[in-house]
Amino acid sequence: MPGLDEFSLIEEFFAPLAAGCPGALGLKDDAALLSVPPGRQLVVTSDAVVAGVHFLPDDPADLVARKVLRTNLSDLAAMGASPVGLMLAAAFPRDTGEDWLRLFASGLAADVAEFAVPLIGGDTVSTPGPLTLTVTALGTVGQGCELRRSRAQLGDTIWVSGSLGDSALGLKVLQGQVRGLAADHAAFLADRYRLPRPRLALGACLHGLATAAMDISDGLCADLAHICRASGVKAEIHAERLPLSPAARAALELTREGLAPVLSGGDDYELLFTAPAGQDAAVAALADRTGVELTAIGRVTGQDGDEPVVVYGGDGVKLFLGRAGWRHFEG
Amino acid sequence: MPGLDEFSLIEEFFAPLAAGCPGALGLKDDAALLSVPPGRQLVVTSDAVVAGVHFLPDDPADLVARKVLRTNLSDLAAMGASPVGLMLAAAFPRDTGEDWLRLFASGLAADVAEFAVPLIGGDTVSTPGPLTLTVTALGTVGQGCELRRSRAQLGDTIWVSGSLGDSALGLKVLQGQVRGLAADHAAFLADRYRLPRPRLALGACLHGLATAAMDISDGLCADLAHICRASGVKAEIHAERLPLSPAARAALELTREGLAPVLSGGDDYELLFTAPAGQDAAVAALADRTGVELTAIGRVTGQDGDEPVVVYGGDGVKLFLGRAGWRHFEG
Repeated sequence: MPGLDEFSLIEEFFAPLAAGCPGALGLKDDAALLSVPPGRQLVVTSDAVVAGVHFLPDDPADLVARKVLRTNLSDLAAMGASPVGLMLAAAFPRDTGEDWLRLFASGLAADVAEFAVPLIGGDTVSTPGPLTLTVTALGTVGQGCELRRSRAQLGDTIWVSGSLGDSALGLKVLQGQVRGLAADHAAFLADRYRLPRPRLALGACLHGLATAAMDISDGLCADLAHICRASGVKAEIHAERLPLSPAARAALELTREGLAPVLSGGDDYELLFTAPAGQDAAVAALADRTGVELTAIGRVTGQDGDEPVVVYGGDGVKLFLGRAGWRHFEG
Repeated sequence: MPGLDEFSLIEEFFAPLAAGCPGALGLKDDAALLSVPPGRQLVVTSDAVVAGVHFLPDDPADLVARKVLRTNLSDLAAMGASPVGLMLAAAFPRDTGEDWLRLFASGLAADVAEFAVPLIGGDTVSTPGPLTLTVTALGTVGQGCELRRSRAQLGDTIWVSGSLGDSALGLKVLQGQVRGLAADHAAFLADRYRLPRPRLALGACLHGLATAAMDISDGLCADLAHICRASGVKAEIHAERLPLSPAARAALELTREGLAPVLSGGDDYELLFTAPAGQDAAVAALADRTGVELTAIGRVTGQDGDEPVVVYGGDGVKLFLGRAGWRHFEG
């Protein structure tokens, strides 16, 4: 990075993102300060991403920045929390150019503005390896109002926000694996892969309605299994009820994988939650209020078992699932 | 990492480090919860380290873990904060073995116990590149009691804790660059390089006495220059007053670099602070109370200038300094 030491890099590209947050101390002190209002508790989450593993090496720098911020904000949404600050620890390859950095910082700036959450600190180092980014997002939620994975109850309805599978299909589109798809559908899916929409407004309204919640990052079935194991329950979902975008429907017709991208594709960053049966009107009202589509896809059917998630096809027949979802360090 | 997916890795190695902290939710939820007591504010810092850049690739795994935790705790100490939680985001190379992981986790466990601070969350991913670790340390400090870099005053005395240069010399020892050093001195210096002692007890007592403070990570002169720039002052220090360990004295006699490792070597993780002149007795009492040696090495001499830090040798002659300290991304 010719001509740019760590301090000029922070001064030029990152300090502007801390403006307006006195506790960030201009990114110039040993640590940042945050006040947590009385009656609120702090919520904190970290996500790390590696070029070539979690994003495509030639993904635009601004979208790389925004995606890793947003996956963290999605974790806050899944806890019902509102964001108050972001930390960014970046290991930049030594040949990272100034143009790339400028675009990266512009992506951060766009989301700092869009979500009204300042960058308050972090670290900047160089690496002989691939670009590696760790974002730590800090938020607050009322005492006792946080959403957890562990409180789903027998008989609850299972809900998801938005549409499923778009991101997994968007990755396939970007990798050239979906031939013949209309350009507008392709663009929609690629955008859903690159720029998740964390459901913060929805998450903040779920307290008192949802019994358990999480965001879908590993894939619907894998993440629903997390809720089931944490709550000690089993679940069934119905394939024909899964919310699909028109673009996803079109792409699925062109691929030969059936519903795999929808059931086990990762990176949806939609909210998955359970709510007591009979709350459909309350959920519909919430969908209206937040402008986010909410769809009932199944229900909690029993206590803990070997097979936490069962999927039924349109014909009422159980679908076969391989090892669902995306896992790191597989075999 | 054969046989270990992300979830078993967390379950086996990291979840035990969250025991006793209900807000960590067993490392199984989307985020962790922390309560900040009334009258306290949150302090948060992140440090990233990369194998081959910030530590030696064959450094023992337990010490790698402990060092990155401790450098973060040192940042909390520099703010006067007490630690309440740690987040670890780790990008492990794909060939990381179970024995290495076990040793790494045992190092984390040792420090989680020693500093009584739980692991509350993080992320675990794989990387085709070098091991990359980001630790985010969370602490609390009384409202308005935090130590900052920016409040040094004209006439203040400049103090450092412990001894300087041990870590930089320890790295040289480990790299085989200090021949003929006695084994006990070599072991002392290597230990100082590998296992910093964050000055948490000292930092927590400095409110009301120190005007400015930071920890020494980039090297004495570079870090004192940070305080000077942040405070708009200049400083002079006296080489013969710098606190040196017997091992450092012995090593310096064997190298030909003069005081460079002491003035600009990094990784000391001692506290550097300014206090009003005339507070020597109070500082001495604090040294007694905390068991940490504190040494006056110079004073704040004037307002902002081109050369923030001047070093005088024993003969009263200004020493020449090249670009001081360790910086990332240098030309």
